[in-house]
Amino acid sequence: MARYRLHCNGTSGNSYKVALYLNCAGLDWEPIGVDFAGGATLDGAWRERLNPMGEVPVLEADGVAMSQSAAILLRLAETTGQFAPASNQRFEAMRWLFFDNHKFTNNLAMHRFQNCLTPRAADPAVLAFLRSRAESSFAIAERHLASRAFMLGALPTIVDFSYAGYVYYPTAETGFDLAAYPAIDAWRGRLAALPGWKPPYELMPVGTSPPLRMA
Amino acid sequence: MARYRLHCNGTSGNSYKVALYLNCAGLDWEPIGVDFAGGATLDGAWRERLNPMGEVPVLEADGVAMSQSAAILLRLAETTGQFAPASNQRFEAMRWLFFDNHKFTNNLAMHRFQNCLTPRAADPAVLAFLRSRAESSFAIAERHLASRAFMLGALPTIVDFSYAGYVYYPTAETGFDLAAYPAIDAWRGRLAALPGWKPPYELMPVGTSPPLRMA
Repeated sequence: MARYRLHCNGTSGNSYKVALYLNCAGLDWEPIGVDFAGGATLDGAWRERLNPMGEVPVLEADGVAMSQSAAILLRLAETTGQFAPASNQRFEAMRWLFFDNHKFTNNLAMHRFQNCLTPRAADPAVLAFLRSRAESSFAIAERHLASRAFMLGALPTIVDFSYAGYVYYPTAETGFDLAAYPAIDAWRGRLAALPGWKPPYELMPVGTSPPLRMA
Repeated sequence: MARYRLHCNGTSGNSYKVALYLNCAGLDWEPIGVDFAGGATLDGAWRERLNPMGEVPVLEADGVAMSQSAAILLRLAETTGQFAPASNQRFEAMRWLFFDNHKFTNNLAMHRFQNCLTPRAADPAVLAFLRSRAESSFAIAERHLASRAFMLGALPTIVDFSYAGYVYYPTAETGFDLAAYPAIDAWRGRLAALPGWKPPYELMPVGTSPPLRMA
């Protein structure tokens, strides 16, 4: 049994944040597929044992089950030292992690879900609403990355793994061609050049679920 | 000049999180009204000086401008010790703060904005989409608070101030009657009993903006 056991699903970019970190950090980990669309995380026993928030990822390590990708990344950086923000960058790391959870990843993930993961085609008004929100978030990240190699400066940190959640999924899924954002595109290229980098579907199982409408 | 200067707007629940904390902690602070709806935060100079994310709140203290309410609350708890999570609750504090930014506050705030702050009535499909998301978040907080006085247990912490962002705004604005959630309702009552508690519009100026469609 690996030291780090990641309950995840290949379609979950929030799971991918942690999976990619574990792989690039070269840690002893294994993915445990969760049938998210099949309702596994709605199950009371699953929630009781692993996560009352009913979400993946959940990282099990040393007998503890941890949820929320950013909290997990912070804990891993603290305990392993890998991709940890410098001590004088703690506040900056924190606020960009919150901005990611509040807006960058969140808006992109919501748009992708409505774009390809709902059983029926989503309402066009909802897609337009989410597209506008996502584009606002992209604009802020684009401006930030225009003068930096990585989110906090010259070196990759956990903040980059957080922003990377959904940026490697196919355009047909997300509904966005991020190549249209030169700084974001160059940044994701630099991150993809790290040893251990793999795209989401190569790091985590999809299992029986969920059906991608765009596939 | 007060030690803590909070750039904020009465209609911003994310600003309220910090304003309420500062007031309940009895710190030396003053609100500085920001004409959010009038586009103040879209201004390049404002972003350059205060927050490239273009959002309120921004807390100025000791010559530093800090943004992202949760990052600010974490910093204030660390530097003042007030409402700080216990050291063995750091991970738990972090994951509930991220859940709040990702879902609880976010879904409630998005619904309220579409419900009363857009220039024209929002699309019913968008409102229904956001309502469903908000209700899912409420259900998770409701279950969590059913067996706890505050988010982390017996004592109020910064996590409670984070969740409190939008829970005291009028139902006509938010579109939700939180009295329908007994545990959330009792919890916000306990928080409102703290010395220094005031509702959002008594702590922060609204100024000329924005017009509430429900007012």
